[in-house]
Amino acid sequence: MSIQESEDRARVDAIVIGAGLSGLTAARRCVDAGLSVVVLEARSRVGGRVWSQPLEEGGWLDLGGQWIGPGQTRVATLAERLGLETFPTHTAGESRLDLAGHRARFAGDLPLAPADLAAIAETMAAFDAMAGNIPPEAAHDAPRAHAWDGQTVETWLRRQTRSEAARAYLRVTIASMIGASTSELSLLHMLFYARAAGGLAALIDIDGGAQQTRIVGGTQQLAAALADGLGDRLRLDTPARAIEVRGPGDVTVHAADGSRRAAGVVVAVPPALAGRLAYDPPLPPARDLLTQRYPMGAVIKVQAVYPTPFWREAGLNGLSLSDRGPVVGTFDNSPPDESCGVLMGFVEGHEALRATAWPADRRRTAVLDAFAGVVGDGAARPLRYVEADWTRERWSGGGPVGYAPPGTWTGYGAAVRAPVGPIHWAGTETATVWNGYMEGALQAGERAADELLAGASGG
Amino acid sequence: MSIQESEDRARVDAIVIGAGLSGLTAARRCVDAGLSVVVLEARSRVGGRVWSQPLEEGGWLDLGGQWIGPGQTRVATLAERLGLETFPTHTAGESRLDLAGHRARFAGDLPLAPADLAAIAETMAAFDAMAGNIPPEAAHDAPRAHAWDGQTVETWLRRQTRSEAARAYLRVTIASMIGASTSELSLLHMLFYARAAGGLAALIDIDGGAQQTRIVGGTQQLAAALADGLGDRLRLDTPARAIEVRGPGDVTVHAADGSRRAAGVVVAVPPALAGRLAYDPPLPPARDLLTQRYPMGAVIKVQAVYPTPFWREAGLNGLSLSDRGPVVGTFDNSPPDESCGVLMGFVEGHEALRATAWPADRRRTAVLDAFAGVVGDGAARPLRYVEADWTRERWSGGGPVGYAPPGTWTGYGAAVRAPVGPIHWAGTETATVWNGYMEGALQAGERAADELLAGASGG
Repeated sequence: MSIQESEDRARVDAIVIGAGLSGLTAARRCVDAGLSVVVLEARSRVGGRVWSQPLEEGGWLDLGGQWIGPGQTRVATLAERLGLETFPTHTAGESRLDLAGHRARFAGDLPLAPADLAAIAETMAAFDAMAGNIPPEAAHDAPRAHAWDGQTVETWLRRQTRSEAARAYLRVTIASMIGASTSELSLLHMLFYARAAGGLAALIDIDGGAQQTRIVGGTQQLAAALADGLGDRLRLDTPARAIEVRGPGDVTVHAADGSRRAAGVVVAVPPALAGRLAYDPPLPPARDLLTQRYPMGAVIKVQAVYPTPFWREAGLNGLSLSDRGPVVGTFDNSPPDESCGVLMGFVEGHEALRATAWPADRRRTAVLDAFAGVVGDGAARPLRYVEADWTRERWSGGGPVGYAPPGTWTGYGAAVRAPVGPIHWAGTETATVWNGYMEGALQAGERAADELLAGASGG
Repeated sequence: MSIQESEDRARVDAIVIGAGLSGLTAARRCVDAGLSVVVLEARSRVGGRVWSQPLEEGGWLDLGGQWIGPGQTRVATLAERLGLETFPTHTAGESRLDLAGHRARFAGDLPLAPADLAAIAETMAAFDAMAGNIPPEAAHDAPRAHAWDGQTVETWLRRQTRSEAARAYLRVTIASMIGASTSELSLLHMLFYARAAGGLAALIDIDGGAQQTRIVGGTQQLAAALADGLGDRLRLDTPARAIEVRGPGDVTVHAADGSRRAAGVVVAVPPALAGRLAYDPPLPPARDLLTQRYPMGAVIKVQAVYPTPFWREAGLNGLSLSDRGPVVGTFDNSPPDESCGVLMGFVEGHEALRATAWPADRRRTAVLDAFAGVVGDGAARPLRYVEADWTRERWSGGGPVGYAPPGTWTGYGAAVRAPVGPIHWAGTETATVWNGYMEGALQAGERAADELLAGASGG
């Protein structure tokens, strides 16, 4: 069964690099079409940025992507097909806000001055009106693409509204989605990102938005189930190193354990990591330079486990939003059977960079202090404190998602998905629907597989 | 002599990755201090972004960096020490402008309306006043660093002046320095870049600026001379692939031809390429994420060789500036003995990306058409047409220089030079003086070597 046994064994129809949701989806689609497939995964596990761990206390932790929102039909269908139970993100109770100097406990509308609330609504409406002009298949072809790609989201925000509270609100919500600050993001990219999700509110909201639904037992089950059907086509602990294109339909992938030849390859890792593979011949300039201009965000997902979600009794829902740092937002991540209580928070962007360099003790203390500010002093002594520091996940390169700084889309956007001979690009960063989400990962995997299949059949 | 012969042979004090001017400078400094050194160079030649070729017609072509400006003392001293002759860039005669709809042949001041000239002067003065506040060792510590790093140069330019001609002038001059558009560049980065050179005029000007002086026979002689003294310490055609840190003062570099162990390593390639090496253990997050946020520019340097610099007889100096594309600016690159005439032009940024994808014929025609617009129809039939397409130079990753998009400096700037254990970072992108220039390459090489030497002596 070793790949080195014979030249025949080492030759397959398709090689997939990366066993995240996107790569696994591509692989399964190729297998279903009758192709011979090998999937190379650098880690000892499947799932990529989707990663779950069972808890001794009962329940589980999702260390990466964890939500399904309305309109995410592929991922919802997959969960249903696998018989996975879902449950709504817990929202009953009062939230906390600590934003631009406003501190409050509240239910319903954000506890801001009417002028600030109006400013948020107007800013989001203006944003969505612009986003409506973005063709999701080619953001760089939007009518005002150059003007929008030539500025940061921060620049636009400062020009759009004088409400410091509105700016602060959009800064923290956007940072918590992307792992980057409004100062790093191209306005065009963020417009595209919202367009691909159906609007800014769809990205921000819990009920009716991207944070609506969770999967009992964790999202990694989606990846595990996709992987199950692959059997020994899947090679864990096998980082790909180089891609050698010998001709049309003739590509060799060099990995730690040897080389494999195929008719086509799907690279299902983010652009920044795709750029770290060696290519022979070198990638075309537009693609090579794109990989230098599509960095991963920075995020540390922090979770504390308690005997119960004690804050619920105090009328709190564990939700918060803060610009005080290091934790930008929190959620009640407890399992639906309340076998324990889990409070989850995000440390994002430049804050994540600062925090990852601290000693573990200091980081834990800072996070639990922030948690205590949300749910009370009971947060200080959890049964368990778990960090998923995606800035240190070498096989993701950061997290939660890759993004485009100014000038990337208008200069290099055409290279985001364009195949390079037998090399096809997957990964949620290449999606045109729910880019950055599990849904986008599935869509991108399907599309890359379809490209490869069309090529394999001479299409 | 093979590195694999014995464990002793494979062990040196210092390994330098990259035989550009920076790596060679670092290597020579280590050798001079009595260290055993190996330099690994991926290409079959030394020089990196400094590359010269002799011409059959007489003279030579500089395909990469070619100028020395006032204040660039290290490179001037090196040229002098090597006995290399220098000569001034040819400027006598009239230039061409084709900018924001203004087309003219002119000498002296730019042929723009007084209001536009005033706008250029005011904009440059405002820029330099800001740049004066940048500490070159830590741009991210500038007083208004966050505000400046949160916007593109384009955003600042649009706010700073209403003169479309002034904007166009600064767009093309900045693009021709960096290989990126004002839409891609962090304002803070550009302020730092100007500060490191002594001001925006120092970057733009020919006489009295960065384009003042050339070296007879080409700049690659600087690299060749530095390499000469290295003898068989220098290994060409030997791309480094991985850096493994086993402990303080114990690092192994894996290359195509085997592995070598050393007390320290100098990585003298741009940040984007440094990020493509494999590191074990992985780089700290700040450094890893920095390499994802410091892309190379895009440039094609085009040159046409004629029997004589015929434009001089017509009273032209071959200099031009244009926003019409694809050639953003031209220079008279003829050798001082006028053994032939050489007209040189730059295709930069997004224009370079577009042009590199064209068939060679189309690109040549477009460039020679642009040249004809500058020096007349005689430009259409050169003896020789030579392109240095740095977007296709895999071992440079682009050109002429790496730059920071918004948010890089304030989030990740501290990692630009900070050593990672025994790993030291060189390359002109890490310079605090004339960053991006040959001078910066030398300064960075000296500094990295000094760090390594301090470490080697237990300092």
